[in-house]
Amino acid sequence: MSNQQSFTVVAGGSVTTPKGFRAGGLHCGLKKTERHDLGAIYCEVPANAAGVYTLNQFQAAPLRVTQESIAQGGKLQAMLVNSGNANACTGQQGEDDARAMRAAGAKAFGVAEHLVGVTSTGVIGELLPMGKVLGGIERLHAQVKVDGGDDFCQAILTTDLVKKEICVRVTVGGQTVHIAGAAKGSGMIHPNMATMLGFMTTDANIESVHLQKLLNDITDSTFNMITVDGDTSTNDMVVVMASGLAENDALTPDHPDWAAFAAGFNYVGEVLAKAIARDGEGATKLIEVTVAHADSRDAARAIAKTVIGSSLVKSACFGADANWGRIIAAVGRAGHPVQTETVDISLGDIPVLVQSRPVRFDEERAAEYLKGELVQIFVDLHMGDATATAWGCDLTYDYVRINAAYRT
Amino acid sequence: MSNQQSFTVVAGGSVTTPKGFRAGGLHCGLKKTERHDLGAIYCEVPANAAGVYTLNQFQAAPLRVTQESIAQGGKLQAMLVNSGNANACTGQQGEDDARAMRAAGAKAFGVAEHLVGVTSTGVIGELLPMGKVLGGIERLHAQVKVDGGDDFCQAILTTDLVKKEICVRVTVGGQTVHIAGAAKGSGMIHPNMATMLGFMTTDANIESVHLQKLLNDITDSTFNMITVDGDTSTNDMVVVMASGLAENDALTPDHPDWAAFAAGFNYVGEVLAKAIARDGEGATKLIEVTVAHADSRDAARAIAKTVIGSSLVKSACFGADANWGRIIAAVGRAGHPVQTETVDISLGDIPVLVQSRPVRFDEERAAEYLKGELVQIFVDLHMGDATATAWGCDLTYDYVRINAAYRT
Repeated sequence: MSNQQSFTVVAGGSVTTPKGFRAGGLHCGLKKTERHDLGAIYCEVPANAAGVYTLNQFQAAPLRVTQESIAQGGKLQAMLVNSGNANACTGQQGEDDARAMRAAGAKAFGVAEHLVGVTSTGVIGELLPMGKVLGGIERLHAQVKVDGGDDFCQAILTTDLVKKEICVRVTVGGQTVHIAGAAKGSGMIHPNMATMLGFMTTDANIESVHLQKLLNDITDSTFNMITVDGDTSTNDMVVVMASGLAENDALTPDHPDWAAFAAGFNYVGEVLAKAIARDGEGATKLIEVTVAHADSRDAARAIAKTVIGSSLVKSACFGADANWGRIIAAVGRAGHPVQTETVDISLGDIPVLVQSRPVRFDEERAAEYLKGELVQIFVDLHMGDATATAWGCDLTYDYVRINAAYRT
Repeated sequence: MSNQQSFTVVAGGSVTTPKGFRAGGLHCGLKKTERHDLGAIYCEVPANAAGVYTLNQFQAAPLRVTQESIAQGGKLQAMLVNSGNANACTGQQGEDDARAMRAAGAKAFGVAEHLVGVTSTGVIGELLPMGKVLGGIERLHAQVKVDGGDDFCQAILTTDLVKKEICVRVTVGGQTVHIAGAAKGSGMIHPNMATMLGFMTTDANIESVHLQKLLNDITDSTFNMITVDGDTSTNDMVVVMASGLAENDALTPDHPDWAAFAAGFNYVGEVLAKAIARDGEGATKLIEVTVAHADSRDAARAIAKTVIGSSLVKSACFGADANWGRIIAAVGRAGHPVQTETVDISLGDIPVLVQSRPVRFDEERAAEYLKGELVQIFVDLHMGDATATAWGCDLTYDYVRINAAYRT
């Protein structure tokens, strides 16, 4: 979907590049080491807002509170996030704590409570140490700056290694509009609806209803197309805030520059989604699976996600083993009928299966390709016109190490 | 389902304990090391037979050939198996090779072709080296003996570490009847319909139609309730052969001893299924997840399988980390509605969540429990009457090591 013509990547851009946004982060004591664990994005004006949330039934308390805030007027002015503790499965106390976080944020930033969103990531089932959180929120206001995008990115990481941020510029009705995003991912990543934590900002003038529709659309082809380990978190959420300060004519699907804006918006989502996949727990590489010529988009998506989610495919990529048998086995169990005699598979530009028959290939060259930082797997079903791409990462010793001792 | 009253485990029993059966194995050159890679079970008389097969759409050639054999007269007299090569995704040549294996088996054992079944396990997408296979089958006849159950078990292993066999004795209409089984599992284990390779023998007098129904029933609660890595193989199959030489009155569902026989039959399946899970690639322990008081059997099964399949739950068990948040997150994404306020979770006899609220527990005692060879996870939904149990294993460094270099 990304159309390189319609937008430009802003070098060094962050969530504070769009007009009106500031951000920041600090250490309030939730993480054991001195790393940032509390952050905020703040907008000078109430920003039109939209969000997508996990479909896990055990949705964490802060997600419910954020949904309430957005439901009240379609706007957010401050978005708070803590890492180190997910405030999930914490009962009524957790709900009260999320509300107390929101109230403290409203007080610190001098805005109405329904203009504040809250979100949390980290261990499930432990109560938030509210003394630390509330103390941190009081100090946070002074840390929220135009150049605070980096601190914010640090504050949302848990087992992530790399900050994930991106900003693009689009022209809308002659005005320059920015779209930016930051995200955290790592483990328990198998989004269903939304995913992990994603924060997008834009200075575009666009109503919440259109923003929500656009967010839903791009989520299906970006955040919902990644998997690290098949585990859908209780805390997945992507929120977008639009300040309107670019002063463009209001964007609607009928606007002549809608497609350009949508392409930029999708690109921001795709860059963040791929960054999350690449930075999956223990990962050494990004894997991209494209399923072409499926007979429906649902089939293409399901098959791509099944291949990308296969522990055996992931292990083979880690070991640079061109074991395409695992790919075809995953295609065959994805729950959608395929023509078993017409499947092509390539690893990068190396065909390994043509019309469901193994072809001789140079094993050394294939191993060399699989050792790279990006492995692209192409599956052509020769059935119809639908295509989908999914992203994931390899399964490594470090994934096991990290998750064998996450809490301890 | 296992009813200890109705059957007795036969110490040292194998697939050749039921009357009329012989078995054996040898090395024909498919495995790189001098381990057995070709085996057979032979019955003195044509045995009533039934089978269940993978639902993966890329079903391997030998499975189709075995289905044809059984379809012709409901009987098998010899079952051949090779390890080291799956003969899957090998096109017309693979189909021809599976038929040539069957023909060679028929000749070697002096029986009609439709009384021979064939099956394969190993690497996908490589043609069988037929010279080695056919030469091996010629020699195999002399190796098939009443005490050859052990050699047969060796021949079906790939990355398995431990032989999996069991035999029970049941009394039917005053006659002693035996039910035995052998299996191989290890990786690409997430059965859908059947699983891995399972071979059951019995000397019971029972028609194929009843045998098939019984096999379907127990498969749903045994072989289909295990997962190692969520990957459904192209070669999964369980076949049962009944010689009838126990000379009991024919078993039908109306026979007074049907329930006793069914319980013994189920027990054999359950023992093999658990052994496969415990011996999953790289596993250090068996994990058993029981979901109680679900509102339907489908829900109980789906939730149990989702928990047992979670890479995060599996890693936590490896690391002896009582991270129940990962269990509840898996319950919440299993695709069946649950009451989010009424869930209890225990690790062994240690409650960690009661009515969806965390309870304080002794972390050291929990870690000690999780370090054991068997981890039992109980999830009580407090919704209805349905219960299901699923089995799996922990996710370890060795799983990654084994699968990063399976072919190389």
